[in-house]
This record gives sequence, C-alpha cells and structure tokens, in this order.
Amino acid sequence: MMNKYSIILGNLGNTCDRFCKSYKSNPSSEDMLDMAVKKMPFVEGIELVGTWDIRKDNVREMRERFSDYGISCASVIPDTFTDKDYGRGCVTSLDKKIRNKALDYLREMSDVALEMNCGIVNLWMAQDGYDYLLTADYNQEREWLKEATATLAEAYPNLRFALEYKPKEPRNFSYHARMADTILAAKETGCSNVGITIDTGHSFVGGENVAEAVVLAKRAGDLLFHMHFNDNHGSWDDDMIVSSVHFTCYVELMFWLRKTGYEGWLSMDQYPYREDAIDAISESIHWIKKYEQIVDQYYEDIESLIRLNDAVETSRFLRRVIG
Amino acid sequence: MMNKYSIILGNLGNTCDRFCKSYKSNPSSEDMLDMAVKKMPFVEGIELVGTWDIRKDNVREMRERFSDYGISCASVIPDTFTDKDYGRGCVTSLDKKIRNKALDYLREMSDVALEMNCGIVNLWMAQDGYDYLLTADYNQEREWLKEATATLAEAYPNLRFALEYKPKEPRNFSYHARMADTILAAKETGCSNVGITIDTGHSFVGGENVAEAVVLAKRAGDLLFHMHFNDNHGSWDDDMIVSSVHFTCYVELMFWLRKTGYEGWLSMDQYPYREDAIDAISESIHWIKKYEQIVDQYYEDIESLIRLNDAVETSRFLRRVIG
Amino acid sequence: MMNKYSIILGNLGNTCDRFCKSYKSNPSSEDMLDMAVKKMPFVEGIELVGTWDIRKDNVREMRERFSDYGISCASVIPDTFTDKDYGRGCVTSLDKKIRNKALDYLREMSDVALEMNCGIVNLWMAQDGYDYLLTADYNQEREWLKEATATLAEAYPNLRFALEYKPKEPRNFSYHARMADTILAAKETGCSNVGITIDTGHSFVGGENVAEAVVLAKRAGDLLFHMHFNDNHGSWDDDMIVSSVHFTCYVELMFWLRKTGYEGWLSMDQYPYREDAIDAISESIHWIKKYEQIVDQYYEDIESLIRLNDAVETSRFLRRVIG
Amino acid sequence: MMNKYSIILGNLGNTCDRFCKSYKSNPSSEDMLDMAVKKMPFVEGIELVGTWDIRKDNVREMRERFSDYGISCASVIPDTFTDKDYGRGCVTSLDKKIRNKALDYLREMSDVALEMNCGIVNLWMAQDGYDYLLTADYNQEREWLKEATATLAEAYPNLRFALEYKPKEPRNFSYHARMADTILAAKETGCSNVGITIDTGHSFVGGENVAEAVVLAKRAGDLLFHMHFNDNHGSWDDDMIVSSVHFTCYVELMFWLRKTGYEGWLSMDQYPYREDAIDAISESIHWIKKYEQIVDQYYEDIESLIRLNDAVETSRFLRRVIG
Repeated sequence: MMNKYSIILGNLGNTCDRFCKSYKSNPSSEDMLDMAVKKMPFVEGIELVGTWDIRKDNVREMRERFSDYGISCASVIPDTFTDKDYGRGCVTSLDKKIRNKALDYLREMSDVALEMNCGIVNLWMAQDGYDYLLTADYNQEREWLKEATATLAEAYPNLRFALEYKPKEPRNFSYHARMADTILAAKETGCSNVGITIDTGHSFVGGENVAEAVVLAKRAGDLLFHMHFNDNHGSWDDDMIVSSVHFTCYVELMFWLRKTGYEGWLSMDQYPYREDAIDAISESIHWIKKYEQIVDQYYEDIESLIRLNDAVETSRFLRRVIG
Repeated sequence: MMNKYSIILGNLGNTCDRFCKSYKSNPSSEDMLDMAVKKMPFVEGIELVGTWDIRKDNVREMRERFSDYGISCASVIPDTFTDKDYGRGCVTSLDKKIRNKALDYLREMSDVALEMNCGIVNLWMAQDGYDYLLTADYNQEREWLKEATATLAEAYPNLRFALEYKPKEPRNFSYHARMADTILAAKETGCSNVGITIDTGHSFVGGENVAEAVVLAKRAGDLLFHMHFNDNHGSWDDDMIVSSVHFTCYVELMFWLRKTGYEGWLSMDQYPYREDAIDAISESIHWIKKYEQIVDQYYEDIESLIRLNDAVETSRFLRRVIG
Repeated sequence: MMNKYSIILGNLGNTCDRFCKSYKSNPSSEDMLDMAVKKMPFVEGIELVGTWDIRKDNVREMRERFSDYGISCASVIPDTFTDKDYGRGCVTSLDKKIRNKALDYLREMSDVALEMNCGIVNLWMAQDGYDYLLTADYNQEREWLKEATATLAEAYPNLRFALEYKPKEPRNFSYHARMADTILAAKETGCSNVGITIDTGHSFVGGENVAEAVVLAKRAGDLLFHMHFNDNHGSWDDDMIVSSVHFTCYVELMFWLRKTGYEGWLSMDQYPYREDAIDAISESIHWIKKYEQIVDQYYEDIESLIRLNDAVETSRFLRRVIG
Repeated sequence: MMNKYSIILGNLGNTCDRFCKSYKSNPSSEDMLDMAVKKMPFVEGIELVGTWDIRKDNVREMRERFSDYGISCASVIPDTFTDKDYGRGCVTSLDKKIRNKALDYLREMSDVALEMNCGIVNLWMAQDGYDYLLTADYNQEREWLKEATATLAEAYPNLRFALEYKPKEPRNFSYHARMADTILAAKETGCSNVGITIDTGHSFVGGENVAEAVVLAKRAGDLLFHMHFNDNHGSWDDDMIVSSVHFTCYVELMFWLRKTGYEGWLSMDQYPYREDAIDAISESIHWIKKYEQIVDQYYEDIESLIRLNDAVETSRFLRRVIG
C-alpha cells in the first residue's frame, strides 16, 4: 500500500465543549499549517475548513503556501456547522433563504476547492437532521438535501463530493447517519461524483463494523471517497487518538481498504480536548502506519483468515502479530 | 386507516433463553391457532413459521383450518434459525451443500406460501452474519446472499419477499442490519418483489428512528412490505408489549405508515418470556389500535406539526392527546 | 404529593455546542429571573449557577430580588466546569494549586448558598474523571475527591451537598457516574450531609432504571437530596423536554419519589439548544405535573401493580391512564 | 504476578440461544473435565456449575477426580438460572415457597463447595431482577435478596460468596447490575465473606471501565473475590475470546489487579457458540497470559503513566508494547 496521510488543520487549534468555551489557546491557520508541515510525520496533505482556514480572500495566498511547503490540499470542508443561521438545518432549513444562502456558500467553497487544486469537498451536513420526534417532515427534508447535493455535484463535475456521515451530534438524529443510508442519499442524486467519507469514530458510534462499511461502499460502485481516523469508547464521538481503545478493527479496516483498492487520503480527524494536538494527532498517524505495515506484511494470511471463518485462527494470528 | 392486524403463531408458544430451556409449556400449532382466533382482538391474519407450523405435509389441512376460521395467512416465515446446519450461515454458509440445502428449503416454503394464498414470505436471515472481526469475507457472503434472494424472487414472481432486518442476535453482526443496508440488499437483487419488514424493536436497537425508516423505504420505491410490532428498553431485542417503554415514537410511526400509504399487515411479534402470551400480545394490539385512533383523529394536526418544526408545539399536542 | 417546582436559571440563556458557539442570544441573569417568575407555571424555586448568576458581589442583591419575587433559591450549583484551569480535573487535578483553588471556590459558593438561605449545594463535579485508559490513578483521584467533599461537608454542617452523577461528558468517564457509585462516594466521606442529585437524563444514559435509583438512595439512608428533570433518546444527555421520548418511566419515578417520601425540589434541567427556553422548560413542568396527578390519582393501583408483578395488568393500567 | 488460571467446565459443552437449541453436541462433565486438564494451557482450577456438574450424589467422586488430576475446584456456581421455578425470581420470587426452595438449594451447593475444598461460591443471581417498569417492588425484592445472601453467608463463614453482576440477560434489569450497586448489596448483608465477581464482558456491557471497577472493590474493603474473563463488542454479553475486540483495557485491568493485590483466580468464562471450545477458551488464557507478561515487564512504566496523565505518553507506551 502506498497510502497518503493528511490531517485536518483545525484539529491543531483550540477545543471547547458546551460547558467549557476554551481548553487551549487559538493559533492562527498559518501557524497551525507551519506546525503540521514541520512537526508531524508522513503528512502530505491538509484538509481545510471553509471560512476558518480558507476563503475567497485568502485562497491564493494559501495555494502559494501549500506550494511552498510542497503539500496538497486533501479536502475542503465547508463550515456548515458554526453559523447560527444553519442551527435548525442548513440545506434542509424550513426557511428558503437559509437554504439558498447555504447553497451559495457551498458553491463558494467548491470554487475555493478548485482553486486549491483539491479534488474533494467533504460535506459534513451536521445540522441537517432533527432533534425531536414528530417535528420534521423527513421526506421533504431529504428531498431538499438531495436537491442541494445534486445541484452542487452537477455544477462542479470536476470535484468529488464526499458525504461524511454521523449518527448524531450536533442534531439528535442526522440524515446522513451511517454508511448505507448515506449511500442511498448519494445514489438518489444520480451524480457519480457524490460519494462517502468514513469517519471511523462516527462508524463505531453508529454500531457498524467499519470494515463492512468499506465493503458496502465498494459494492455500491466505489463510493468511498475519503477517510477520517480517530477512536472512541463506543457510545459517543470522543475523537480520540487512534488505537487508544480498539485494535483489531483497525487491522481489519486497513485490510479492506487495501483489498477494495481505496486510493484516497488517510486523514486524521481528532479533537484533542486536553492533549497536545501535534503530539496526539501524530500518534494516530504512527498507529495507522503500524496497521498499514501489519496489513502489508500479512496480507495473504489475512486473506486466508477471512475465507477460513475460524475465530480461533484469527485470534492466533493476532497474538502472533502483537508479538 | 383500515389496518389489518395479525400475529405470529409461535409467539403463543413456549419461550426459552440460552440459560433456561423452557419458561412455559408447549402447545401445538393447532391449539395456538384456536386460541389466537377465539381469544385475541382484531386478529385477521396469522404468520406461520416454516417447519414448526407449516410444512408440505400439513399445508392443505392448515389452509382448510384458516378457511374455516375465516382468517388469512399473513406471511410464511421460513425457519432459517433453528437448524444447527445453518449455525454458521444459511445462504452464506461457506459450505456449498448448506447453501443449496437452504435455498431448497426456501423454495419449499415459498411453495407452501403460495398454497396458503399468502402473499408474503418474511425472510429473517438470522444466521447470515458473523461474530468475530477478521473472520468473514463480507463481499463474498453478501454476494451469496444477493444471489439466493434473487434466485428465489425470480422463481416466485407472485410472492413478495420481505427481508426482516436486525442488527444482531443470533449473530454478533447481521448482514441485514438496518433499514438502509437492507434496502441496498433488496435493490442489488434487481427484483421488484424483494422488499423489507420492519420489526419495531429491531429498529430501536439499531439506533434508527423507526418513522424515518418508513420514509427511507418509501423513497426507495415502496419497499416496506411488512410490519412487526413490539417494544424494548433500547439496547436489546427484549420483544416486549408495545408501549411498555416508548410512546411518542409509535404515534409518529403510525402517522408515517398512513402518510406513506402502507397497506400491509400490522403484525405483533413478541416473545413473552414470562407473561401469558394471549394477554400480552392482545395488549400490543390494543395499544396499536389506540395509536391508530390517535393518528386518525389528529391526522391534520400531526401534518401541521411536522411542517412546523417546533418541539414545544409537539409537546403540547402530546399532552392534549394523553388527556 | 405537595411537590415544589424549580428551574435552573441558566437554562433560559444562550446555548452552544462544540461546533456552534451560540444558537441564541445572551440574556442577563436578572432578565432570566424576571422571565422565570412571571412567565413559567408553578415555579417556586430557582437554582443558581455559581459565578454566572451568583457571586459574593451580587449575593445580597440577589437575595433581595428573590425576596421581592417571593421565591426561594432551590440550590447553588458551583461552576466547576467552565474554568479552563479545571479542564483536567477540579478537586482531582494533579496540580495541588488547582485542587486548592477549587476547594476555595467551593467554600465561597457554600457561603453564598448560606446567604441565599439555600439548603442545597448541587455539586456536579463535571471535570473530575478521565478520558483515556491507562492515564489516571483512580484510587488517588477518588481519594482527593473524597477528601474535598468531606472537607466541605464538615465545614458547612448546615448545608446539604448533593452530588450530581453523570456517566460521561465533559470527560469520557466521570467518577460520579451512576447512583450506586455516587452513594459509595457519599458514604466514604462519613458526612450525613452528603447525598445525591438525580438528573433523569443522566440516569437514562447510565443504563439505570431511574425509579430503581431512587430506591437505592432510600435504602442507603435517605440520600436523595435533589432532582433534575429532562428527557433524551437514551444514548446521550440530549437534555430535552420531559416526556418527549419516554412515558412509563416518569410515572414510575414519580410513584417512587412519593413512596420513598422525597421532599426535595423537582427541578427542571434542560438545555433547549434551538427551542424557546421559557416554553420548552414550561412544557417539562406541565408534564411532571401531569405525572404527579396520575400518581396521586392512582397511588393505590400502582401499589398493587408493583406487588402483582404482572406486565399485562401494568399495560392495562397504562392504557386506562392514557384514556 | 503469580496468577492462577481456571475455566468454567460447562463452557466446554453445548451451546444454544433462544432460536437454535443446539449448536454442538453434549459431552459429559467427566469428558469435559478430562479435556480441560489434558488439552488446555495453564489450567489449575475448574469452576463447576451446580446440579449439572456437581451435586450431593457425585461430590465425592468429583473430589477424587480433582485430586487425581491435581487440580482445584476454583468455585461452585449454583444453577439459579435454568430451573423454570426461578423464572420470575429466585430468592426474590413473590412466592415464598420458591424463595425457600432457592435458599435450600444454595445451602446444598454451599455444602458441596465445602466438600470440594472450594473457597468460593459464585452467586450469579440471574433471575433476580425484573423486565417491565411498574411491575416490581424494588425495595421488597432487594430486601429478600439481602436476607437470602446474609442467611447463607452467616451459615457458611468459611466460604466466600462472590456476587457476579451483569446489567441484563436473562432479565431486562438485574438487581446485581454493576460493580457499585453490587458492593452496596454486599455491604448491606453486614457479612465480610460476601464480595464480588467481575465478569469482564458484563462490565463492558454495563458501561463501566473495568479497571476502575477493580479500584472500587478495593476501596470498599478488598471485595473483589473472583474474576471471569471474556470479550464482547460492547453492547451485549457476546462471551467471546479475550482480546478479540479490546486490547488496552485488558492491560489496564491486569495492572490494577496486580496493584490492588488481587490473589484470586483468573477464570475464563466464554460461551463459544460456534467455535471449538477447547481452542477458543485456550486462546483467552494465552491472551491473559500475554497481558500478565506485559504488566510484569512494564509495571513501573505503567505506574508512571497513571501518575502522568498524558494520553500521548500512554499511546507511545502501547505502541512500544505491541512492537
């Protein structure tokens, strides 16, 4: 495997939760970029969050910085989640003005992505969902979500739009919740440049087996466009260092990424609330690298194991791997 | 709404778990049928579990009994779960002989369904899944699952095959796990007579909002073929009396069943471990009837609420309904 | 039952999450107080969050306002969660200076509570927990937690300190996680004025049955000091309107509160991210009032039901109640 | 660490679930014993399930077999779960005759334990709990549970009674659900020979961090009497091979067992539904042995890490360990 590693720039910045507004300090995007390039291992790409890191007004300067550093823009992530206007829905808001504003913003971010020579727009439609039962017309809102996605995808045929799913947070229920429903949402658009982003932690919370999610995306027509890595304790998007809780599932995930021919980025997406961000995210890269090496070294063994269907042999293999 | 109510015959029988082999006694299928018809409210249909209730050798007799009682066979549920041979996979077994045996059995049960004038074969592929990570070739097994389903559906164009999904139990991971992935599985077959069964409890355990699952099935092309009702505490398929835990979600579910034009059966599927089965399942019917009445009485109000997106108004409505 | 209803003042204010910094506007404590008193039903008490609502410098003025409005201070909730200094532990910080600062602050808030003629200090030790495995000395940190609690309780024998438990958020694991471990923590102090606050939503997330938690507190020696009410979807502290998801468990909870002779406040603790706060929290009060009435009207029936152990009779009762 | 390894004899036998009555064949207790001793690594003790493996009528013969094999009886586990009479409660049944029958049976099993020179009676009170809300008098039933436990513990001062907790299954709610509530139950008896059994999988399902549970038991007065090992996917008692899902938590658990001076058995408790039992359970022993070696080799490093509170350093350590 020749995997490409990237990080989300903003993960190096300040953190907060609904109780504590700031656990750290606020570095500038430029400082974070410099740290990422100089201090982190294997990083060849950077994901930029729209508005915060990248806008019309700084896109040229950013492109130059990226060029100077010799790194790529792995994706642009439009900020559909911090604007109060989108609080009750972004492209699914009941208010047509908000829906239009959102679509305009997504177009702007798509332009920015093109200017950054970035192939992926990572669409995490965080506010498109609902909180209470009996308060939303699921059919209408899914229709709006489909239309906005299709409109965007048709307008930018040279970009790939990767829908990042997550069962909940910030809404109690997200429309893009798990792999399979997001495949349905992608296919509804009829656009071949709409696919999926897996965030490993979102997948864990969703009760999926993440390796199986990779297979679902493959079967649906090579729809896995992008990967976000982190770990959690299973019930919430704790956004922790990779491998701090789970082990085997990462081996399996890396195996299936290789087996299905995934060629996208392996991007770290953590939220190091109280940790040193550079170090904590570097740890995740080291872990994924380790899993990559395990899969490369034992690829045929794992191929045999998944055909053998014998939990004991798999356990023996894992003990051998751990040494 | 003119809903049709049914029950699963075997739910009136003995119960067990992996610790206690028998919490009750073992009535015959004939006795259970007689009790269902004579003692339970609103029951117009019966679901029969293959092998146990219905086989080639008793299908004529059963058809006559149904005719005498004036009730319908709501579905046939092939028994793909009690045979040790299917323990490591039914139509996804690694052993081709088992896969063939399973397919033959499913054909036999489809014949039986036709003889019972029953439109629905409810396929709960309980053993088609996996337990341990790194022990299964998800792509190959899904392919076998697709092929078997398609083979069956093509051979019986006058039957509708309803895939019943469930996240886990008896396998740690089921291939038909939630609504969206089961829609994908149904669509892969290319057969329009393959659709979905919702079991409300399976949906709760899957972390879905069941009303949203109804909408997903509608959008995928009227794929909701059948409904199983029960309740649970949220983390496991406790198979309890409807409404013993949840309330609002049943109101919402019944609303969306009507709004999407669902015309199938409302079937009770409980597992009354320690309760009187007739009484416990009758309770569920009474509850669903109550929800049906609420939806019929307040249909326009609910229509307004789902367009209003105001949790406070929804709460006020629910207080009014409860009286 | 003659229950006393209260609210947490700050619940009327702005809301945020880790993505969106502000879903609403920022009213002053004084404005919120005025709204609470004038617009909300049955409110006789107010809980004040330390630092934000109540401090040394405004305690006299607040006491006068409360006097003028004719309402009581139901509890003081020291703000142990927004100060960055407490981010890695408040009274369990590895840094002795932080632990001392925290204890000083808790003393100050206890003084304030006394001045407000408020009997309850609600201790939600939100940052006292841990995030990653193999990073904390659970024994040492619990010892610090015990010592701080005991020091406080001994210094203020006329106050009652109610430990509010919650399984996670903002830490991945809280030391005060569920009813039983928090009873152990309370008893370790050896102080009879240390007890427990139940937050219904925290209890749901913890996998407890909240009515059983009430019984545990009773058996441990009348340790239930305070009650916070809200609802959620079961997996996270969604802080929603009471009864928007659950129904039966509130009936049972109100029954056991009465049966165990609970005489404390029934306080609403929501976080109405996107709802009108006055209306949303008023809804919760109306719901609890409704449950109170059900329990008062059917107290003997429920007494019989819990002795009967018959799920069918309980279901019939609930259908009768809903009417 | 000089740990003693044991297994539960019945884990080598047949398996079933509520759907499939038999996944395997039914070896005799004697055959299983022979296999355990001859084929499994490091096994020095055997846990015997009452009635099935050990009864008054075979206790002498069993004692001789154990003596001949040179192994110990690690615990006796009274069968409180398969008898239909106990289906609605064992020592908490509403029926006094059942409660008395249960207590008599527990006495008999305690006699058997004494005759086997076995120090531990492992009490998994599986049926003592409830299923539906509003159907049980929690206070009365806990009182019965306390009385039965105390009666037994007082009658057998030379035995240690280890209460094995589990949140649910076979009841929807168990009275002994998690570590802390079971400590409360143990302490209520006033008997120092009543303590706790941790089953790692039960702890995972309960949402606890199992290492923290060890610390709780230590602080409550050395109440950890016994250990059962297995793994699961987090939401249900899947009873899988150790380490098939989790990794770090076992390192932490083994560290805290050593740090708190645990001297009891390390017993495997799996339910290998579809696996070769000897091999699958042997795998768990090999894994625990590996964790034991890691802890022995790195004990001081881990001591430092838990005082350091730095997730990055912990991650680096784990990468080093895995090699």
